[in-house]
Amino acid sequence: MSLPIRIVLVATSHAGNIGAAARAMKNMGLADLRLVKPREFPHVDAYARASGAEDVLNAAQVHDDLAAAVDDCGWVVGSSARPRHIAFPPQEPRDCAERIVKTAAGDRVAVVFGSERVGLTNVELALCHAMVTIPTSDSYASLNVAMAVQVMAYEIFLAARAGDPAPSTDAPLATVAEMEGFYRHLEQALEGTDFRDHSGSGQTMMRIRRLFNRAVPDQVEVRILRGILSALAVHKRSVS
Amino acid sequence: MSLPIRIVLVATSHAGNIGAAARAMKNMGLADLRLVKPREFPHVDAYARASGAEDVLNAAQVHDDLAAAVDDCGWVVGSSARPRHIAFPPQEPRDCAERIVKTAAGDRVAVVFGSERVGLTNVELALCHAMVTIPTSDSYASLNVAMAVQVMAYEIFLAARAGDPAPSTDAPLATVAEMEGFYRHLEQALEGTDFRDHSGSGQTMMRIRRLFNRAVPDQVEVRILRGILSALAVHKRSVS
Repeated sequence: MSLPIRIVLVATSHAGNIGAAARAMKNMGLADLRLVKPREFPHVDAYARASGAEDVLNAAQVHDDLAAAVDDCGWVVGSSARPRHIAFPPQEPRDCAERIVKTAAGDRVAVVFGSERVGLTNVELALCHAMVTIPTSDSYASLNVAMAVQVMAYEIFLAARAGDPAPSTDAPLATVAEMEGFYRHLEQALEGTDFRDHSGSGQTMMRIRRLFNRAVPDQVEVRILRGILSALAVHKRSVS
Repeated sequence: MSLPIRIVLVATSHAGNIGAAARAMKNMGLADLRLVKPREFPHVDAYARASGAEDVLNAAQVHDDLAAAVDDCGWVVGSSARPRHIAFPPQEPRDCAERIVKTAAGDRVAVVFGSERVGLTNVELALCHAMVTIPTSDSYASLNVAMAVQVMAYEIFLAARAGDPAPSTDAPLATVAEMEGFYRHLEQALEGTDFRDHSGSGQTMMRIRRLFNRAVPDQVEVRILRGILSALAVHKRSVS
């Protein structure tokens, strides 16, 4: 099931960007795409870049102006490369996405992206309730429009998902007791060799422990490590 | 000034994606692009999509394999559509980006993206210390590779902007080249012992690599590990 949040592309010049935006939407669980005066649509470049999101393109409605495309929306967010209206407090994608998701629980929400060259006009921005600006490097602030859709869709996906349990690893982790067994095994293997703790205070073994603790080995991995020690120790015993 | 973080694109099929990735990088303050066996590069499509980031493309180095592209890196993160290795705990872009930025304060860091069709191979993933997976809708999980670069670059930009002072480790991280030296040493030490790869397909050594890559050993730790191998190998040689 897709999120009830609409993406609106206004006066898009390159059909490829429409397709790429459709794919970005589907990747992030969005399906409601509206196009306002696209220069070329439908177009082969849009389908080429959609690559698996043809259903989003096929369902996209085309409108003559932005007002028609967001007619039924309760909250409209305009995307702009730079904050151009002091009336809009600057919002970043993360905070904005949280508000989008909360608002979408009860109202239709649209996120609007302007054309590649000029972005949203002042008339179009006047239809927006808020403005979002994706933070960028000062030296090159102009994001491709499909990339901007991707960033916003990603943040919306994260905001919608918030609270999901994290996926777990499959193999059981080695217990503390199993790790202690491994460290004893290692110390035994080194007894009688010329490996020495140069710190003279057990610091080297502490470093070894920290190294393995950082890795959080699972039980299979500890068996492999002990297998290595056993294999080498056979030879050691035979000369001691 | 750009962040000292490298983006590596492996076996990219479409030159347009390389250009789009370069633009995404420059938007987010990144400049170090490496290409491993690109199908077509330089190419007009790459420059068309770079649109203002031609400098990033012009400076991009091309390599024959991933090991060469990340040779001098202390921490290598592989991007994968789905967690394929239980040995890598799943990491999301936000947490991963924070760690990337902290690590980059003292060591070279690379973020690696596989080809459009197959992503990164197991051999390539074995060079990585961690894996990042961009969360997506279950119904369509495959992000365009340039879009994946955009999401990671955006998160890296946000993490860098947060301005955390980097808590540096005491010793510099072992480089990929130093770790390869350690693995060769380990394999040599095991030669002629009864340690066997029970999987019969090199999987055990792959697990060993992943275990140590997760731990991200520093240079002192690698010296300690090699000291252990040398100490044990003296005894092995004396009986072989």
